Amino acid sequence: KDQLDLADDIEGERSRQIDTILEKTYYNVDTHPSESLDWFNVLIAQTIQQFREEAWQKDNIMHSLNSFIERKAPELPSYLDDIKITELDIGDDFPIFSNCRIQYTPNSNKKKLEAKIDIDLNDRLAVGVETKLLLNYPKPSIASLPINLTVAIIRFQACLTVSLTKAEEFVSIASSDDDSDTGYFLIFSFAPEYRMEFETDSLIGARSKLENIPKIGRVIEYQIKKWFVERCVEPRFQFVKLPSMWPRSRNTRKAEFDDTESPKDN
Amino acid sequence: KDQLDLADDIEGERSRQIDTILEKTYYNVDTHPSESLDWFNVLIAQTIQQFREEAWQKDNIMHSLNSFIERKAPELPSYLDDIKITELDIGDDFPIFSNCRIQYTPNSNKKKLEAKIDIDLNDRLAVGVETKLLLNYPKPSIASLPINLTVAIIRFQACLTVSLTKAEEFVSIASSDDDSDTGYFLIFSFAPEYRMEFETDSLIGARSKLENIPKIGRVIEYQIKKWFVERCVEPRFQFVKLPSMWPRSRNTRKAEFDDTESPKDN
Repeated sequence: KDQLDLADDIEGERSRQIDTILEKTYYNVDTHPSESLDWFNVLIAQTIQQFREEAWQKDNIMHSLNSFIERKAPELPSYLDDIKITELDIGDDFPIFSNCRIQYTPNSNKKKLEAKIDIDLNDRLAVGVETKLLLNYPKPSIASLPINLTVAIIRFQACLTVSLTKAEEFVSIASSDDDSDTGYFLIFSFAPEYRMEFETDSLIGARSKLENIPKIGRVIEYQIKKWFVERCVEPRFQFVKLPSMWPRSRNTRKAEFDDTESPKDN
Repeated sequence: KDQLDLADDIEGERSRQIDTILEKTYYNVDTHPSESLDWFNVLIAQTIQQFREEAWQKDNIMHSLNSFIERKAPELPSYLDDIKITELDIGDDFPIFSNCRIQYTPNSNKKKLEAKIDIDLNDRLAVGVETKLLLNYPKPSIASLPINLTVAIIRFQACLTVSLTKAEEFVSIASSDDDSDTGYFLIFSFAPEYRMEFETDSLIGARSKLENIPKIGRVIEYQIKKWFVERCVEPRFQFVKLPSMWPRSRNTRKAEFDDTESPKDN
């Protein structure tokens, strides 16, 4: 009986702490209007732009994609030969985050808070794909037909959940590095009702039979969605260790305005 | 002449890219209203709360503070003996971030964008200090008077500048670890017109002469401000490497809702 009382006390205390947090940050979960993230969209867009300027990034990505596909080869239908990514379009638009609101984390008994943010991306993220359609009858690979197509994601719309935590319950028990498990983590996850729209086309100039393209496009679409769901759609989430923001000598730099000041000052 | 034209072209191109970013994120630097960060205040407060719950954190901080003071000993006035931190109050309120707006980075010729955010902290962050006032005449340390005081920061108000960058120009040239220099960095800095208010008091029950307390309090206040300015007040800034947010198997976890699901799923 005493243990139950203690558990109740701890529960009650944690609820009160959450109430105190909301009070001291002037946030009423029931009435606070959602907030815009336009400033954040600008900062993120700036880094995406920098990323796009680096031509070698595309090579890196294509390399990673091809490695990933090699590992997935056993899962692919037997009528498809090796798939190879030959081109990459990393888009030229930017994600728009908006409508940010705080809620109690579901199933947390009002003891945790998280942010929900809408994300919308209208762009064209495309891969050029080279593969072969195999005829396996009457014998395996008795004939093959080269197929070249492009598969593009043209719309991504979802609701993102974000929180910060020490989250000891998610820290790897097997981790040998003490340091890596202390500190703060960012948790993010997408709601299952996300929208990811694809557009599949034959590669310009390729002499593929048009009726095969949609079928292969769907195989690729399925693999992409599977990759996404397995990693960051609820109940799965990404758990990323954040660096400490505490000001330190070694993280200190000095802005350079003229030739007499050095850019790095420790 | 060709080189100048090329330089102008590159400059013009970068300005156009910034314009494109602002256009595609619907952000007009001249007219966009500032944005609130109430959701962020809640998430930050939640982690600060978790931090405060860990009693051992206070011990760690006191240990770090005492090590820091030891290193600073040569800078302290000769009339003060060793300073020791004996108590710590890490507060019970939370910082309020607000009024977020995007601007062109000064001195960047409109080629970089950054966010400016107001921060206000009304709290009591205090240290209990034990030291001795030394009488050095006619001989060094001929007499000493034990002094116990508390020094507290009771208000911090500032304007924070934040941006994200690849910032190759700030990456350490001497770094031997390739990996640590690629990726994205968070840059943050406080404007010089910050406000940090202190309150100094004799420790309750201490029999210190009251007129010595303000003098020693000012020595400590000076050291704290110096520590702050040397690290993160313009033109100095903190340059912190951010982890990749790209979804990965190893960062994947699964939310536990009942006993049959494991909390860690790789």
